[in-house]
Amino acid sequence: MQAATIGLLSSSTSSLNSVKNLNLCFPFPQLNNTLLSQFPSNSTFSLVNLNNYINKKNSFTAIPTPVSATMSSSSFKPEESRVPPALPLPTPPLTKFKIALCQLSVTADKERNIAHARKAIEEAAEKGAQLVLLPEIWNSPYSNDSFPVYAEDIDVGGDASPSASMLSELAGTLQITIVGGSIPERSGDRLYNTCCVFGTDGKLKAKHRKIHLFDIDIPGNITFKESKTLTAGETATIVDTDVGRIGIGICYDIRFQELAAIYAARGAHLLCYPGAFNMTTGPLHWELLQRARAADCQLYVATCSPARDSGAGYVAWGHSTLVGPYGEVLATTEHDEAIVIAEIDYSLIDLRRTYLPFQKQRRGDLYQLVDVQRLNSAKTH
Amino acid sequence: MQAATIGLLSSSTSSLNSVKNLNLCFPFPQLNNTLLSQFPSNSTFSLVNLNNYINKKNSFTAIPTPVSATMSSSSFKPEESRVPPALPLPTPPLTKFKIALCQLSVTADKERNIAHARKAIEEAAEKGAQLVLLPEIWNSPYSNDSFPVYAEDIDVGGDASPSASMLSELAGTLQITIVGGSIPERSGDRLYNTCCVFGTDGKLKAKHRKIHLFDIDIPGNITFKESKTLTAGETATIVDTDVGRIGIGICYDIRFQELAAIYAARGAHLLCYPGAFNMTTGPLHWELLQRARAADCQLYVATCSPARDSGAGYVAWGHSTLVGPYGEVLATTEHDEAIVIAEIDYSLIDLRRTYLPFQKQRRGDLYQLVDVQRLNSAKTH
Repeated sequence: MQAATIGLLSSSTSSLNSVKNLNLCFPFPQLNNTLLSQFPSNSTFSLVNLNNYINKKNSFTAIPTPVSATMSSSSFKPEESRVPPALPLPTPPLTKFKIALCQLSVTADKERNIAHARKAIEEAAEKGAQLVLLPEIWNSPYSNDSFPVYAEDIDVGGDASPSASMLSELAGTLQITIVGGSIPERSGDRLYNTCCVFGTDGKLKAKHRKIHLFDIDIPGNITFKESKTLTAGETATIVDTDVGRIGIGICYDIRFQELAAIYAARGAHLLCYPGAFNMTTGPLHWELLQRARAADCQLYVATCSPARDSGAGYVAWGHSTLVGPYGEVLATTEHDEAIVIAEIDYSLIDLRRTYLPFQKQRRGDLYQLVDVQRLNSAKTH
Repeated sequence: MQAATIGLLSSSTSSLNSVKNLNLCFPFPQLNNTLLSQFPSNSTFSLVNLNNYINKKNSFTAIPTPVSATMSSSSFKPEESRVPPALPLPTPPLTKFKIALCQLSVTADKERNIAHARKAIEEAAEKGAQLVLLPEIWNSPYSNDSFPVYAEDIDVGGDASPSASMLSELAGTLQITIVGGSIPERSGDRLYNTCCVFGTDGKLKAKHRKIHLFDIDIPGNITFKESKTLTAGETATIVDTDVGRIGIGICYDIRFQELAAIYAARGAHLLCYPGAFNMTTGPLHWELLQRARAADCQLYVATCSPARDSGAGYVAWGHSTLVGPYGEVLATTEHDEAIVIAEIDYSLIDLRRTYLPFQKQRRGDLYQLVDVQRLNSAKTH
């Protein structure tokens, strides 16, 4: 029989050597408990931590980490409501700083869009912003016809990506962090809707490719299928910057509460969502979703939309907004071009979580949110 | 070696009989994929469904259900974003009906509270309501001192539970469904904050004991520790009624998006949250949370608060509300006593989910929400 087996080892088995097949203990205790219930109630067990085994292709020789387990079912196991368990909130490099949300007008003239964004970022930095957030698709009209035409090869960089090059240059010269909204990215024969994050040294720190493509159809209101031209990203993106740990989502990504929750469990201080909600979904859900993500995760949420162009094929809602860890709107704007500047104070995250401690009151015995990539990765970020 | 093992069977193993140890395939495919990657890329596998094995104490002889698996990693596996996979929305017994939210004033006089609730329910039924929702703790002041005094033994019933008896009687005689807010329940030496659901035959269909106890401390504003007197419930509660499949949460339960999400995955049409948010958390979060749960899960959410008594030890926010599957407020009220009557149309759930199909666009390859009890139960509800 050709078999890899996942196993529960009794404490009488002192090492893996006595096991013929690969034996792994699964990190979902409710299942282990089902198995444990087969044993006498005074049995004790030694469980091995799966994280020691995964992502070690062609090698199953890692040393198990013993974890004590009891047969008690009275605990609510809040730490198990996130798999792997939530990381503590890291200490950010600075606690208070200004963020700028550059709600840019976007035209069909790419050079103008880049020059225009440059001017806005410089103005934001002059006003003291240490973090600048740009809108979704700020260098191109938002349309499936435009994406291939305006797309840039970010990995090649330089002249192959004038939009990203400008952001890199400004981040370095102005010594600010830029969460560069998004632009259409070309990579091989694929196109992505991609957000670049540049550090204060001008280096590309992270690239988020929109995970959830915007494919909706509200008859008579709005129909859009990004998947006609774009490919969805394969990973969640969280990045440590000089202004804290930031989780990135692009527009439709905000509808998926699970993404925000796994970022929170990875220790995010701030979620940034460049986004271009439209005249149907904007009034319905734009503010609601960002407030919900902030209140549920008890962290900051910043969004940035293009300014509204009523003559465009896709009319953006605008209303770029900063939301605090109580879900409260701290700063916002209407639909015209604007630079929203507001202060972020990360010390409020701890305070809110102390006042309303539901991050620690979840019922891991009833529900568990699995961060698949973190579970499968040795790099617990 | 004493060992129960969870295993991955190759297709060459045609039955469990050839396996010495118990072999179960784990239903988390990302882990299986980690193991699968050890095999040649053209291998095929037969996976067994864990649900056939669990909750069968002292018996491991169930027959496996073969599930085909491929080694492709290109799929986003939306169906795996819920574990077990989400159930389809069931066809409700009726599509359109009226709900009544009875925002009752509550006093220290229990007999008066019961008579008062009776009158409100009768009035709601007269106005055509087929579902009546009552507030959290409607027969007693909301305080740890009162809970033991006002508590009733619901399981004994009759005179031991005059509040539940009244609800049962009215549900049967008026032929309506009652989601009976909550009352302090005594069971043995424990107290719970419990919601009773009565069907149109007057029978107790379900009992939800508040899962997440309200233990918060906002200095200078509100401090409350339900856990001083109450015990938390052990299960999520979803119930099929003549007015659809209803998931129940009590007040603080609404803060936990996971509970709403697992109800949605169990096919809920409507979530009912009796709740008494206060003058701090009410303006902050009451409407936001119910709109967020409705918009994220694309179903109806109904809440019911006691009316505000500014002289009470705990001052309720009021604002009982019905929210539709777009997260839109359909009916609400201020803080005075009121009966909110509004129409529910379940056909809108399907419509909203067709327009904005994100229930089917989740990324099971990136995150998975596990409904622990449904996973552990053969009764997939």
